[in-house]
Amino acid sequence: MTGTSTALLTDHYELTMLAAALADGTAERECVFETFARRLPSGRRYGVVGGTARVMDAISRFTFGEAELAQLSGVLDQATLDWLADYRFTGDVDGYAEGELYFPGSPLFTVRGTFAEGVVLETLVLSILNHDSAIVSAGARMVSAANGRPIIEMGGRRTHEEAAVASARAAYLAGFATTSNLEAKRRYGIPTAGTCAHAFTLLHDSEHAAFTAQVEALGTDTTLLVDTYDITQGIETAIEVAGTGLGAIRIDSGDVGVLARQARQQLDSLGARNTRIVVSGDLDEYAIAALRAEPVDAYGVGTSLVTGSGSPTAGMVYKLVEVDGRPVAKRSSHKESKAGRKAALRRHKPTGTALEEVVYVVGAAVEEEPHDRQLQVPLLRGGQPAGELPSLEESRQRVRDGLVSLPWEGLKLSQGEPAIPTVYVEK
Amino acid sequence: MTGTSTALLTDHYELTMLAAALADGTAERECVFETFARRLPSGRRYGVVGGTARVMDAISRFTFGEAELAQLSGVLDQATLDWLADYRFTGDVDGYAEGELYFPGSPLFTVRGTFAEGVVLETLVLSILNHDSAIVSAGARMVSAANGRPIIEMGGRRTHEEAAVASARAAYLAGFATTSNLEAKRRYGIPTAGTCAHAFTLLHDSEHAAFTAQVEALGTDTTLLVDTYDITQGIETAIEVAGTGLGAIRIDSGDVGVLARQARQQLDSLGARNTRIVVSGDLDEYAIAALRAEPVDAYGVGTSLVTGSGSPTAGMVYKLVEVDGRPVAKRSSHKESKAGRKAALRRHKPTGTALEEVVYVVGAAVEEEPHDRQLQVPLLRGGQPAGELPSLEESRQRVRDGLVSLPWEGLKLSQGEPAIPTVYVEK
Repeated sequence: MTGTSTALLTDHYELTMLAAALADGTAERECVFETFARRLPSGRRYGVVGGTARVMDAISRFTFGEAELAQLSGVLDQATLDWLADYRFTGDVDGYAEGELYFPGSPLFTVRGTFAEGVVLETLVLSILNHDSAIVSAGARMVSAANGRPIIEMGGRRTHEEAAVASARAAYLAGFATTSNLEAKRRYGIPTAGTCAHAFTLLHDSEHAAFTAQVEALGTDTTLLVDTYDITQGIETAIEVAGTGLGAIRIDSGDVGVLARQARQQLDSLGARNTRIVVSGDLDEYAIAALRAEPVDAYGVGTSLVTGSGSPTAGMVYKLVEVDGRPVAKRSSHKESKAGRKAALRRHKPTGTALEEVVYVVGAAVEEEPHDRQLQVPLLRGGQPAGELPSLEESRQRVRDGLVSLPWEGLKLSQGEPAIPTVYVEK
Repeated sequence: MTGTSTALLTDHYELTMLAAALADGTAERECVFETFARRLPSGRRYGVVGGTARVMDAISRFTFGEAELAQLSGVLDQATLDWLADYRFTGDVDGYAEGELYFPGSPLFTVRGTFAEGVVLETLVLSILNHDSAIVSAGARMVSAANGRPIIEMGGRRTHEEAAVASARAAYLAGFATTSNLEAKRRYGIPTAGTCAHAFTLLHDSEHAAFTAQVEALGTDTTLLVDTYDITQGIETAIEVAGTGLGAIRIDSGDVGVLARQARQQLDSLGARNTRIVVSGDLDEYAIAALRAEPVDAYGVGTSLVTGSGSPTAGMVYKLVEVDGRPVAKRSSHKESKAGRKAALRRHKPTGTALEEVVYVVGAAVEEEPHDRQLQVPLLRGGQPAGELPSLEESRQRVRDGLVSLPWEGLKLSQGEPAIPTVYVEK
């Protein structure tokens, strides 16, 4: 997507606000916009920030060329169009690093600049962070449930074709081993995997012929899908064709726990002791956890990953919290926000276990303790990258480190409270 | 996205299957792949096909240029790479028209061609149809619940930035009036709408100043957001600033039903009898239905639309059902499919009310009745468009017509069985 303008991935009202603010002179007021989630998805104990690197890239392409301006010419006055033609974000951004855990109220992405500069980025920032964080948060629970066994991401077909690519990236960030999505390999270097579907077996005159063709083309280390007809027969044929050096079998339907156990016995009795068992088919974190005691070597996960396992959006908002140094917040009945620019630190026990998320108004008297860690890092300064972004591998390591730091209840899959409380410190 | 190759929006295993089939000579067997949903999302009474036009466009761009082939050179043998370099889909496609209702088993998108030609399209076809159909299906329920009142789509910030554009299109297809998404206007000509967020009020020294700026920039026919501080005061200020000719007010939080009633009384008492009331804030089809008796003039819907209101994917699959004229199907325990190429007709009462979805194997003896309607239309012939696709407006009308044809239980929002049963006729 490099090179393409992202400027119209924006809500109409951001530009009408801009027009009105340019007209009355308020557009140049210095503002702070804060991105945060009021709460975690129902029952979740932590969230994981995903998409930061994608947002950085998208902001760098947020420019209005002739094609974009032509679309807006009926809607906006000439002064606003002229302003947009020159638009480059020149403000500052601080945020949680990609892969960092977050909790209710965590200031995940703070944009400072003029009102005009900041208001137009709302939709783009939220779209990316809301999507990618939802996926990586769900994925982290699956990785945690898989307890060291590798997971293959194969959900691209169940979500928008571009969301599929971002989902593959988010899954890898969460700790998935590979993806089926080829574009994710091109764009992000994520390793891909895949062998054959039921269609390949059905195409052939027999399962034997199909397995023979596959082994000839892909080698004996391939994964043979054994549940097209009868699984027991399928496994027998698989070993007959590939020999006991067969890489793996895959079971995609039925009670995969029971079937895995039977398959393991059968494979062992055939002498294929090192042939792995891959299971797939509507797995989510709960199904993965339930398979922990079964002889499963890898999981294939699709739908539940790309749909955020029940929480397809992270529900983050992008709120104006400060104008010319004055804290501001909506004050009517519901959906209240806390005014003022905030930062955050995570407090830990000496053992490294997280204790609380301290979200404080910048300038408030917060006594730092020895095991505190500041959570915001500089992302943009004067519109330019504040440094090199972490690599995807580094962000992936950050997720692992974050999960290790949670109190043990934080890793439970059951519905509960956030793993650590958010403590607000106001001025 | 015109001009960009879609070829890598594909699962790895499609190309390894291709390689193995090219090597053993089965790649050229004539195949039929069928796209269908085994079931509707839990409790839903109908689905609506979305994305057909996007799939047609995506298939036309499914070509492997040098950049795509370079990505695959480590994975595939030279013969496969050469085959891909020449790839253009040259087969036939028949499917349900976009906007058509569907039910379990409806053959929504049937691809005929060689195995090689058809197998590589699986992920792309499914990604688009699964996403867009999920959104339009949810949207149709909301439009139905709104009972003639317009709905504004404003969910782009809660989903992937490109899924946002497709969601805006799907919402319009479902009958939404407008979208906030500017790219959807550029790409699909969908009317956009939007005025101001709470940020605009907070930016100003007072609500009065903010409303004044907005009315000066956008005219008195604008929509003023009145719930930043105190709604009653906000409405008073709105009319004071804009006069009784104010277009609309918007309420985005709180118990919007109660607030709308109070707002209507207040507006009327101020003489602003024609000022409309727009409500938004976490609305879904149930909330919209609950507001039916309240003086609401329009709804703004975001999160619930773009997440498919609990069903973010349509769960469609793409299955090989015929090889060289021989019906094929997976036969093991679960996830069975029905073999053979199928077509479908919808049976109606003489009044036009739908009675059943008759899914029949092509060639089976189906006695057509006077009020039957064949559901598949030709989409591609020899890889070329079989005719001009319906316009988005025509597909939108098709959704309306479809909903009118359902038995009344079919429009209930509560969980239930599909509105009409699917009847299979095999040879």
